[in-house]
Amino acid sequence: MAELPQTPLLDTVDTPAALRTLKPTQLRQLADELRAETISAVGTTGGHLGSGLGVVELTVAIHYVFDTPADRLIWDVGHQCYPHKILTGRRNRIRTLRSGGGLSGFTKRSESEYDPFGAAHSSTSISAALGFAIANKLSDNAGKAIAVIGDGAMSAGMAYEAMNNAEAAGNRLVVILNDNDMSIAPPVGGLSAYLARVVSSSEYLGLRSLAKRAIRKLSKRAHNAAERAEEFARGMATGGTLFEELGFYYVGPIDGHNLEHLIPVLENVRDSEHGPILVHVVTKKGKGYAPAEAASDKYHGVQKFDVITGTQDKAPPGPPAYQNVFGDQLVEEARRDPTIVAITAAMPSGTGIDRFAKAFPDRAFDVGIAEQHAVTFAAGLAAQGMRPFCAIYSTFLQRAYDQVVHDVAIQNLPVRFAIDRAGLVGADGATHAGSFDVTYLATLPNFVVMAAADEAELVHMTHTAAMHDSGPIALRYPRGNGTGVALPKVPQRLEIGKGRIVREGKSVAILSLGTRLGEALKAADVLEAKGLSTTVADLRFAKPLDEDLIRRLLTSHEVAVTIEENAVGGLGAHVLTMASDQGLIDGGLKLRTLRLPDIFQDQDKPEKQYADAGLDADAIVATVLKALRYNESAVVDGARA
Amino acid sequence: MAELPQTPLLDTVDTPAALRTLKPTQLRQLADELRAETISAVGTTGGHLGSGLGVVELTVAIHYVFDTPADRLIWDVGHQCYPHKILTGRRNRIRTLRSGGGLSGFTKRSESEYDPFGAAHSSTSISAALGFAIANKLSDNAGKAIAVIGDGAMSAGMAYEAMNNAEAAGNRLVVILNDNDMSIAPPVGGLSAYLARVVSSSEYLGLRSLAKRAIRKLSKRAHNAAERAEEFARGMATGGTLFEELGFYYVGPIDGHNLEHLIPVLENVRDSEHGPILVHVVTKKGKGYAPAEAASDKYHGVQKFDVITGTQDKAPPGPPAYQNVFGDQLVEEARRDPTIVAITAAMPSGTGIDRFAKAFPDRAFDVGIAEQHAVTFAAGLAAQGMRPFCAIYSTFLQRAYDQVVHDVAIQNLPVRFAIDRAGLVGADGATHAGSFDVTYLATLPNFVVMAAADEAELVHMTHTAAMHDSGPIALRYPRGNGTGVALPKVPQRLEIGKGRIVREGKSVAILSLGTRLGEALKAADVLEAKGLSTTVADLRFAKPLDEDLIRRLLTSHEVAVTIEENAVGGLGAHVLTMASDQGLIDGGLKLRTLRLPDIFQDQDKPEKQYADAGLDADAIVATVLKALRYNESAVVDGARA
Repeated sequence: MAELPQTPLLDTVDTPAALRTLKPTQLRQLADELRAETISAVGTTGGHLGSGLGVVELTVAIHYVFDTPADRLIWDVGHQCYPHKILTGRRNRIRTLRSGGGLSGFTKRSESEYDPFGAAHSSTSISAALGFAIANKLSDNAGKAIAVIGDGAMSAGMAYEAMNNAEAAGNRLVVILNDNDMSIAPPVGGLSAYLARVVSSSEYLGLRSLAKRAIRKLSKRAHNAAERAEEFARGMATGGTLFEELGFYYVGPIDGHNLEHLIPVLENVRDSEHGPILVHVVTKKGKGYAPAEAASDKYHGVQKFDVITGTQDKAPPGPPAYQNVFGDQLVEEARRDPTIVAITAAMPSGTGIDRFAKAFPDRAFDVGIAEQHAVTFAAGLAAQGMRPFCAIYSTFLQRAYDQVVHDVAIQNLPVRFAIDRAGLVGADGATHAGSFDVTYLATLPNFVVMAAADEAELVHMTHTAAMHDSGPIALRYPRGNGTGVALPKVPQRLEIGKGRIVREGKSVAILSLGTRLGEALKAADVLEAKGLSTTVADLRFAKPLDEDLIRRLLTSHEVAVTIEENAVGGLGAHVLTMASDQGLIDGGLKLRTLRLPDIFQDQDKPEKQYADAGLDADAIVATVLKALRYNESAVVDGARA
Repeated sequence: MAELPQTPLLDTVDTPAALRTLKPTQLRQLADELRAETISAVGTTGGHLGSGLGVVELTVAIHYVFDTPADRLIWDVGHQCYPHKILTGRRNRIRTLRSGGGLSGFTKRSESEYDPFGAAHSSTSISAALGFAIANKLSDNAGKAIAVIGDGAMSAGMAYEAMNNAEAAGNRLVVILNDNDMSIAPPVGGLSAYLARVVSSSEYLGLRSLAKRAIRKLSKRAHNAAERAEEFARGMATGGTLFEELGFYYVGPIDGHNLEHLIPVLENVRDSEHGPILVHVVTKKGKGYAPAEAASDKYHGVQKFDVITGTQDKAPPGPPAYQNVFGDQLVEEARRDPTIVAITAAMPSGTGIDRFAKAFPDRAFDVGIAEQHAVTFAAGLAAQGMRPFCAIYSTFLQRAYDQVVHDVAIQNLPVRFAIDRAGLVGADGATHAGSFDVTYLATLPNFVVMAAADEAELVHMTHTAAMHDSGPIALRYPRGNGTGVALPKVPQRLEIGKGRIVREGKSVAILSLGTRLGEALKAADVLEAKGLSTTVADLRFAKPLDEDLIRRLLTSHEVAVTIEENAVGGLGAHVLTMASDQGLIDGGLKLRTLRLPDIFQDQDKPEKQYADAGLDADAIVATVLKALRYNESAVVDGARA
């Protein structure tokens, strides 16, 4: 274990109140210690590093200038909040980040009064801050709301919607645009070009000298209205037109690592009668840690690593990640079919679309954090004869639900949804869990909804989706690595709405959807040992259901259990509905549905999360035995079978 | 019946191809006749009028200049597409608009090759057009994609997301911004102020003379690059900075009712090597029909009316509309509680929030077409101690699903969702049906989901929601008028998760959620007449379920039927899941779930839609009888009871 960094000053600063007793000249040292502590902590825990390192000075400056927690500080996404957590009473738990029972990797209301609004998905901060600001306005509360949002997050429409509504907040709202010119992947689209233009302008290049003059001026705390006007005019001159058009006063750009720039500007913003103000701060992701600065992704998300060398723990060699199996198969499909195109919303490597983009750069589209556009863009492509794959994490597809309904399902357009991170996701916790997609997609007419049981199935399903032209089709698969099965040399085109029997038995039927199949097979072994002959089916399709197979299994076994990595309303509900529609339950039917529990589960190791959820082999066995105990003779029958 | 207008020229123009044989000098007459025909048709059918009248000349000009349907014309929302339908082979059916079996009130792919992309929800057109444009680019197809989008629709984030990604389309994409300074309600926010500023600029006021010079120049079809550059520079000079920042060439503003302005500019845009181009066209909603121009809403949506006088058919006097019952009760709650605030996304009168805004202007927020922002803004307000009601139609709440999950449900914030237009909605058809909200909300942990059986229940539920501080709560209710029950003088605070017995019987149990209660009671009468004593329960809550009541009903009746105005995955699925979890189905349970069918239903009268859906009294009776026929002795038992 690496030594802990020496942090004599930080050791005296447990809270922002303590921070505010320091002299401005001490802040540089504090920031340096805070950076060292952040690096050390993430070296131990893994997690998001580059974003936090980029805002060390900004974190110090905001808490120094503003009256947190009365002033409400809202970090967009929350990737960057580790230094904030260290400064707000959570340093003693910082090495529990993202582990079970530990600190969340994002901001979280239940964790601290300094986290007034939780985040994890991007681009919510301005809307939320506006809510705080307006609430204060209506209550005659002087408190401010400060949103810190990255340039990548500005590509999402909801940030724009919020900006467009912000004027009413007046000076109660401050938006800090943290422009690191690098969200998770390089920023995309017109806005980033615009920002780059501003930053590269002669005004910006002359910032150093300009800032010196500004500081002289701004350090007079009670500066007059004319000076303020001049300051805002400076913003106009150096850029920010887009924000001005949306009703903001624009201030910037300023160097986000220079506390001598940041502090007086933020003080001035704090004291301004004008508002809302947008402060354009330029930072470097990974700042101050050489291995991060040198890495192409700036150590956005890292494994545990050695602080001296920056070497990350390698994942043990094992089966390929689902996303890469998908990406590679999509490349194969695209070689065969020139109409296949791929869309990602700022997650090229997370979805495996990076592999596709390498092979077919003209046919891959990274639209930025803009899931709504991604889906309707795909619908337009499909309407003009292309075969689009829209690769979006389950949790982020929620951002585009209306586009899925209105633009894809109602029009029955053959858009292919590759839904990664389905089910529980481990360290990222509840905000990133893909718990609802079977429910919210299978309720839609025209949709086909598949779930892959392993990486070989994912290959088949990718091929099946590529070949499916009659309407929308979704394939879901989990975060993480496959099970190690051999990948098929030739992918099969699966028959729509047909499952498969994986193991044949007589007493118990386990109807599995997705990667719980392994647990179902384990459970079958346990049940067999108890004399309960067990069938295991991989249903493959949540919609349309394999009604023939399901009817046969339900009516020929003593007890049946469905299992899925999804909340209520998904596979189990559809199987029960079918059984009710067909009158199968009239004469008695021992059918149970195992699903995610009706709570938002915190981060933990995935296997622990699934055990907690009652979705492992033990839970299947217990459910079967409990169901059979309702009629003891059935157990005897089962044992006889 | 009013006389049909004289339309000698229009009578010769069945298709855009025929239109393109006309001389430019004939287009004024054609537009006048098209306007008269539109007014006449909507006088007969009711529907959206003001928007269509505003784009008569634009419709003529686009089809005259562009090569539709090879060039893809996409009308945003589709409110304004009636003149387009008349010109694209559908004139013979134009007086069937919005009626069962007739033309849709929106664009629809299945209706015509001239409708390449269906719409009805706003702000999708640029994303879709970009899909067409990129598909053409990849296929080396020269065709263009033209999106026509109103200024109101530009407030939605997805339009911005699309603009931010449009640059790659080059000159294959044309966006026409139809700026009528009036979406459904007056436009909101910074963008509209910006447009107003542009339109009121001296450059715009001098447009007439400038346009004359421009026309002289532009009429030279093969104008050179220098002239083109000048033309684009003109756009820069007259405004459009925001669009330029997003990568568009800006042209405009131009008078959208002046064909001599429109045609040459559009020809020029068509032939430009530059792109994407945004053409800023200024129109008047309701243009050319005095009663519409004089009305505050410009006859956005109208009943059948007298063409001469503009007098609309009055709805027969009857019970109040649900939206107004809600709005009035919310005013009552707000008198009692100063923390109650209300949010609408551009639907103040449709949601009844107009009444609230009149009483409490400072506490009502119309955020424009920006549902995502609306929900997270509400979450921010709730986190700062306010009691926000977010009033959004069921179908539009789909736009904010991730915000509902991530910002409200996960944080368990007490945001109140007043979900209007739940269930089938009649003339607006599938795109506006509120079919999925029970499914997509009840799957979420922490949520309370209620549905009102009538307007008195809506009063109680509004009050209950106002008093519910422990987490998110939704109340859903249909489009249209109440049932005529007396409104309560004092609203009750309902116990969360408790239903009520409306009628007590012994053999059959009908478990109703929402306004199908009336049909359930009718069905009970029919069943009683057949000797089947029938209980009718109004469950009130889809989540949490009244487990005690449901268990009792299921186990003490021969047959039970759930009914809801929602698709699969809603109430019925939750009741079945509960019955399965508790082992109630093990010994046999005649339980059926009536729900919306697994298709998107076209427009028709609501009662016809519900009959088609199998959600009326007849269907309930048939379901019960069929279920009992599985065991004839049960019928006898039932008859004996």
